[in-house]
Amino acid sequence: MIVFQDPGDEYTEIIELEGHLIDSYILPKVFDRVMDLGGEFEVLDFRIGRRKDETSYARIMVKGRSRDHLEYILKELRSLGALPVYIEDAKLEEAPDDMVLPDGFYATTNHPTWIRYNGRWVQVEDVCMDKVIVVDPVAGRAYCKGIRDVRRGDLVVVGDEGVRVKLPEYPRTGVGIFEFMSSRASPEKPTPTIVKRIAEEMYKVKASRGRIVVVAGPAVVHTGGGEHLARMIRMGFVDALLSGNALAVHDVEYALFGTSLGFKVDEGYRIPGGNKNHLVAINEVMKCGGLRRAVEKGILKKGIFYECIVNDVPYVLAGSIRDDGPIPDVITDVVEAQKAYRMHLKDAGLVLMLASMLHSIAVGNMIPSTVKVVCVDINPAVPVKLLDRGAAQSIGVVSDVGVFLPMLVDELAKLKALHGSPKKGDTYREQ
Amino acid sequence: MIVFQDPGDEYTEIIELEGHLIDSYILPKVFDRVMDLGGEFEVLDFRIGRRKDETSYARIMVKGRSRDHLEYILKELRSLGALPVYIEDAKLEEAPDDMVLPDGFYATTNHPTWIRYNGRWVQVEDVCMDKVIVVDPVAGRAYCKGIRDVRRGDLVVVGDEGVRVKLPEYPRTGVGIFEFMSSRASPEKPTPTIVKRIAEEMYKVKASRGRIVVVAGPAVVHTGGGEHLARMIRMGFVDALLSGNALAVHDVEYALFGTSLGFKVDEGYRIPGGNKNHLVAINEVMKCGGLRRAVEKGILKKGIFYECIVNDVPYVLAGSIRDDGPIPDVITDVVEAQKAYRMHLKDAGLVLMLASMLHSIAVGNMIPSTVKVVCVDINPAVPVKLLDRGAAQSIGVVSDVGVFLPMLVDELAKLKALHGSPKKGDTYREQ
Amino acid sequence: MIVFQDPGDEYTEIIELEGHLIDSYILPKVFDRVMDLGGEFEVLDFRIGRRKDETSYARIMVKGRSRDHLEYILKELRSLGALPVYIEDAKLEEAPDDMVLPDGFYATTNHPTWIRYNGRWVQVEDVCMDKVIVVDPVAGRAYCKGIRDVRRGDLVVVGDEGVRVKLPEYPRTGVGIFEFMSSRASPEKPTPTIVKRIAEEMYKVKASRGRIVVVAGPAVVHTGGGEHLARMIRMGFVDALLSGNALAVHDVEYALFGTSLGFKVDEGYRIPGGNKNHLVAINEVMKCGGLRRAVEKGILKKGIFYECIVNDVPYVLAGSIRDDGPIPDVITDVVEAQKAYRMHLKDAGLVLMLASMLHSIAVGNMIPSTVKVVCVDINPAVPVKLLDRGAAQSIGVVSDVGVFLPMLVDELAKLKALHGSPKKGDTYREQ
Amino acid sequence: MIVFQDPGDEYTEIIELEGHLIDSYILPKVFDRVMDLGGEFEVLDFRIGRRKDETSYARIMVKGRSRDHLEYILKELRSLGALPVYIEDAKLEEAPDDMVLPDGFYATTNHPTWIRYNGRWVQVEDVCMDKVIVVDPVAGRAYCKGIRDVRRGDLVVVGDEGVRVKLPEYPRTGVGIFEFMSSRASPEKPTPTIVKRIAEEMYKVKASRGRIVVVAGPAVVHTGGGEHLARMIRMGFVDALLSGNALAVHDVEYALFGTSLGFKVDEGYRIPGGNKNHLVAINEVMKCGGLRRAVEKGILKKGIFYECIVNDVPYVLAGSIRDDGPIPDVITDVVEAQKAYRMHLKDAGLVLMLASMLHSIAVGNMIPSTVKVVCVDINPAVPVKLLDRGAAQSIGVVSDVGVFLPMLVDELAKLKALHGSPKKGDTYREQ
Repeated sequence: MIVFQDPGDEYTEIIELEGHLIDSYILPKVFDRVMDLGGEFEVLDFRIGRRKDETSYARIMVKGRSRDHLEYILKELRSLGALPVYIEDAKLEEAPDDMVLPDGFYATTNHPTWIRYNGRWVQVEDVCMDKVIVVDPVAGRAYCKGIRDVRRGDLVVVGDEGVRVKLPEYPRTGVGIFEFMSSRASPEKPTPTIVKRIAEEMYKVKASRGRIVVVAGPAVVHTGGGEHLARMIRMGFVDALLSGNALAVHDVEYALFGTSLGFKVDEGYRIPGGNKNHLVAINEVMKCGGLRRAVEKGILKKGIFYECIVNDVPYVLAGSIRDDGPIPDVITDVVEAQKAYRMHLKDAGLVLMLASMLHSIAVGNMIPSTVKVVCVDINPAVPVKLLDRGAAQSIGVVSDVGVFLPMLVDELAKLKALHGSPKKGDTYREQ
Repeated sequence: MIVFQDPGDEYTEIIELEGHLIDSYILPKVFDRVMDLGGEFEVLDFRIGRRKDETSYARIMVKGRSRDHLEYILKELRSLGALPVYIEDAKLEEAPDDMVLPDGFYATTNHPTWIRYNGRWVQVEDVCMDKVIVVDPVAGRAYCKGIRDVRRGDLVVVGDEGVRVKLPEYPRTGVGIFEFMSSRASPEKPTPTIVKRIAEEMYKVKASRGRIVVVAGPAVVHTGGGEHLARMIRMGFVDALLSGNALAVHDVEYALFGTSLGFKVDEGYRIPGGNKNHLVAINEVMKCGGLRRAVEKGILKKGIFYECIVNDVPYVLAGSIRDDGPIPDVITDVVEAQKAYRMHLKDAGLVLMLASMLHSIAVGNMIPSTVKVVCVDINPAVPVKLLDRGAAQSIGVVSDVGVFLPMLVDELAKLKALHGSPKKGDTYREQ
Repeated sequence: MIVFQDPGDEYTEIIELEGHLIDSYILPKVFDRVMDLGGEFEVLDFRIGRRKDETSYARIMVKGRSRDHLEYILKELRSLGALPVYIEDAKLEEAPDDMVLPDGFYATTNHPTWIRYNGRWVQVEDVCMDKVIVVDPVAGRAYCKGIRDVRRGDLVVVGDEGVRVKLPEYPRTGVGIFEFMSSRASPEKPTPTIVKRIAEEMYKVKASRGRIVVVAGPAVVHTGGGEHLARMIRMGFVDALLSGNALAVHDVEYALFGTSLGFKVDEGYRIPGGNKNHLVAINEVMKCGGLRRAVEKGILKKGIFYECIVNDVPYVLAGSIRDDGPIPDVITDVVEAQKAYRMHLKDAGLVLMLASMLHSIAVGNMIPSTVKVVCVDINPAVPVKLLDRGAAQSIGVVSDVGVFLPMLVDELAKLKALHGSPKKGDTYREQ
Repeated sequence: MIVFQDPGDEYTEIIELEGHLIDSYILPKVFDRVMDLGGEFEVLDFRIGRRKDETSYARIMVKGRSRDHLEYILKELRSLGALPVYIEDAKLEEAPDDMVLPDGFYATTNHPTWIRYNGRWVQVEDVCMDKVIVVDPVAGRAYCKGIRDVRRGDLVVVGDEGVRVKLPEYPRTGVGIFEFMSSRASPEKPTPTIVKRIAEEMYKVKASRGRIVVVAGPAVVHTGGGEHLARMIRMGFVDALLSGNALAVHDVEYALFGTSLGFKVDEGYRIPGGNKNHLVAINEVMKCGGLRRAVEKGILKKGIFYECIVNDVPYVLAGSIRDDGPIPDVITDVVEAQKAYRMHLKDAGLVLMLASMLHSIAVGNMIPSTVKVVCVDINPAVPVKLLDRGAAQSIGVVSDVGVFLPMLVDELAKLKALHGSPKKGDTYREQ
């Protein structure tokens, strides 16, 4: 496996030079030639011989404007003794059975990945962590697939030959919030400033027609943040909502009774017998047969899911062993739920994770490292786990979602007032 | 709803007396009569008139040896002016549709519960939290049911009339570990002593043919506790294991490679490329078609699930949105998984929860407050959430399962050496 | 030791009755007599003989309007056979040496306490936890003293005879925030509502001329809350500030450079070499010889301590082994620092603890359980430890002080706009 | 400031070359010459001109066997056009007053540091973080000093010219525990393996006559680890103990009553009124006038401090605002306590931090990054804070000290049985 600091792409090759490079004027000649031909180069490695009788070695990445242009440059360099590092095609083996991988399969990272196929670099689609790469020989395309989706006879990449990965660039300097925070989740960062910066990033993503996916747990409602998430949806900053049964039930309970597990959220006291409201909320949804019908019948008139439904923002509720009910909207089969999550995460520009350990970590496993991630949780363990995944553009904020969300939505509202409504994210492929 | 301090049972009624009880010698007469007839009584409430012209009031619980005996005593007392508190039968209403409850349904607690049905107290079976009570009029029995299991026409208890709940008795004094710890999860308790006491409780449960159910998360393997849990199973202290995909995959990875997510658990270093072992472990199980076949084929030769399989200890793996794979043993539909969990939790004497937030909280919702629970987690939030559920006999231990488990198993081994093998738990009802 | 549910005060005694109370009409007679004489009573204990030949027993608390009135009632009751429970004077023993207690000394709780001295109940002054009671026989007064303050010959209460403690009343119902929150520190409460309620409590305390003491750690500045605490001081809601070296140095660093440990708090990035700003801030204070001089010389022009100094709000900085510097304002001897803390905590109406484990726990040990305490920390362990102390009116808020503080100060500003400026708290006794 | 990857020492200089290095054969000539003369070199930086007409640049570190040898090599290289990078002496300025630094002072890191003084590199003694460097011109030596210890006229280094710092080398591979753990504090590491490795490291340190300093909090006693720490002292693995009042009082309480804050540590229950034992323990020490006298008088017969005293292991107890008592052994002035801590940390080979946030962070600030640190705490925030300090050889273990300590001491006992008693650490300088 070649780990590339620089963006690997199809018009890039690596050449090697060995010999008395310094005495022989070869190196400058190579550089000159590449530039004369309109190409670009970068010295990846250079080892100088320490004594006169020792040879030197250089490894240089050369980039052309097109495949043909690159081939032309490489031919020229060959005459200078610079040989392209020969890269074998990625090895493929057939899956012996449904949901069974060939031994030695290549396990993916969450970084942008290419495989060498028929002498060319082909970028792997839908890349995410701990999956395998399956090649479609007809289309000449490569996909990331989970083991459950592998079918007998699928061509699976084995070994790491002919696989190229682009590590994320950790920006050393700069004033972006992702640079600032990239280090580590810390409970002791200036939250108001962070909130402002996150709002700016979200606006920027929307301004460039990117999609924002929100992952949220029931604590959003319980800590009083429900109305603010609803407002964020109404304002157009949410392109999909991924969660579970509990968020929906909490949201309905709050919409119907103003309570969350029996707590009057806005007045701040527990009403006697109020813990039953949770079950009543489930029953009301059961009566209607689901959230959408509850909105249509005028039962559900506000809240997070009301806004999703009236604003055509899709949501996915994944089942969990912990569920009460669950309501009919929940996908109780977790493998199906994973598929639905993945569909909505496709091409996400930014994922905002709010107080949900289970779903946040699940989503963290489904997205490439190039997606911007903002994870807000009062429990430092959640952002820490996510940042460990090596996401380059992840922010972990150890904060109380109940005070964080209103502040964030206020900042978004200011940006909207100043610069206009955010744009609808590019549509994703429907199943 | 009547909340009873004392064990309510079928041979118990409550009587009321009002009037000039003190001047009238009535109270002592009532007491004498009950005792003369071989019954028992307890003064539940006694309000003395503060002035001569104010009447007094007493509420007394009377208990007989049988229903007939009780009726006889009550008849006698009636002649003294003591009237049994008339208790209406619990109100029943038909479920309007499958998975839909009648309005005003009674939501259960996790405490032992009786309903008044045809003038008698009937104990509710399978009681657990936030469910409803359904009466089978043919059998004259009452069951706790989740909303998903309710069928159109089921007779559901509505309102709280004719429902009686027995709160757990929090023992004030005594030397048992549950008394000692009942207060609160604390990271600053003498762990070695607690470990010893928990071992004693576990032994006691087994000695009385009780069943021990273990709920465990993957951190058990990751922190080096896998072998110890395996040993505990081999020693006969585990009657069922409830977990998810991750524990099984970690366990297989450790059995095959000695690693957990690529860490050499026993040597303490990360092997290069070892993170792939996780996926290889999944693939090995996939090849066999499940854990049991992996044992039969001689692939899986040790570990937690190996011991479960060769010692006939049942296990349930519940699916989660976070799963890699998952392996074929996992029940991917969470509603089905809940049923399987509940079946194995039936009549559990003690539940030992090891480093698994998701599954521990799920199980906490499925068991009555009378079950002994020991919850070990390095994250204080987990035991705190569980203790909040009002379980009377719950111990929360904030500790590192990697050092806790070996110590616990050593203590169990000592007890076994001293007092002989633990007995097999009573069989649970198979579906 | 008598534990009293009701406010013990000097005009209260307990009487006992034993015998055939029910047959003998004695009980109603006692009640009548007390009421006829204008007194009040409460039945503390009443055990009815279960058979005719068993005697009954009652313990009744009787209260008069004055000591003389009480004595008169007691005399009357004696004629009915009701004997006052004889209460011995608290036993006193001389301290054998400076800082040495007599064996068997009585250790105080943090609840209001009275001792029986010369046949009367004397309330103990300055009560706080884990101290001893020293009697001044000349003044007839009793004080709570730490072991370090005990001098040879001091009369120290030994044993618990003649000591009466009033446990806090945990309000079962009601809409006050302290009732609502009294249960337990939870990270999942509706924060915006809680913030509003806390603001109301603070305003109420000030409106009744109570004193608000703030305990704060450096995270206040680091998370961007410094300006908001400064504003709260300027608005008149802080009567004393208790902290340590770090808060002051962070505050000065932010005032001089806009950074906190080198982070640009308002822009959200780390400036190169900025970690040195911390030391420069210390040096600037060192040059002036202290914070007050730094304000006078025009070096320190804003921030928390600037506002304290120009608004005459006293502050105490206690030294710690962790201190950088420390600056001259710090009391480096911890025994002296404790004294200074205690002086400012005297008669506090509400203590607001902000993100400081060390100082919050120290202060928790210094105040009686009757003081309202609001403890805000992102680490749940801090409020949990404080609530364990048994403070009746304590609120633990697990939140991010960086977003909590601005919200709180906004709410205070609204209240001020609505109802006028808060009043200056009653002056405390200067040393 | 020059940041050096390689150990800077006095016989090292840096040379620069610029020009058409590749065409001109200069580079190989320089390499040859250094090697011919018996020196060593390392290419620190090498930038090749990209076109024929661009010059190249090299920066090379040259090392000799002695100062004279180095000077001789440099003279030879000069003839090849290689000029030593001219390094100015570090700039010195007088401290304007006691405890006041000159503006622009250099703030130290915790890494090994040299300053250029009179044209030579002088290593700074007692280096630790966030201090300043003071030069003694008579002795020609440089020291790290806290601002409180600076006296008017002291020569303080200003700016970072002429200051050289050696960053710690983070070992990429290898099987040592410090390499394994260096990444990050994680609650999910295989604890039994880690414990074994830490024991080996401790034994190794002792075997090479290094000193082990233990920093411990009261949770050691509370969680049942007190006896194990006592045993570790008795076995010779502790050269100094740094703590506070609470550890000593808990230790004495346990020695006298078997309780810790009233908990029977070994039996696992709370004794009624036992919370007073804490104060009684303080009083017993007060009676004797200190721990040593309590041992001499036969009052204190076992425990951590008993073992310290009878085995001549020095201890320092630092005062804190939270102290009960404190006992006479406590240094109540924190500046004095810091000095005492620092004295015992001098030349420490390994610091073992056990469940004490306050003291661990204080000690973390006092030691250079070259000291091995093992920090065990159930609260992940403590090891995280310490690792943030950039200590190269730090291990953070998120574990329960109550189960960790017995396991560690057992491993130490095994090593002792196998390889003999550990050696007494090198004596430190007494004040």
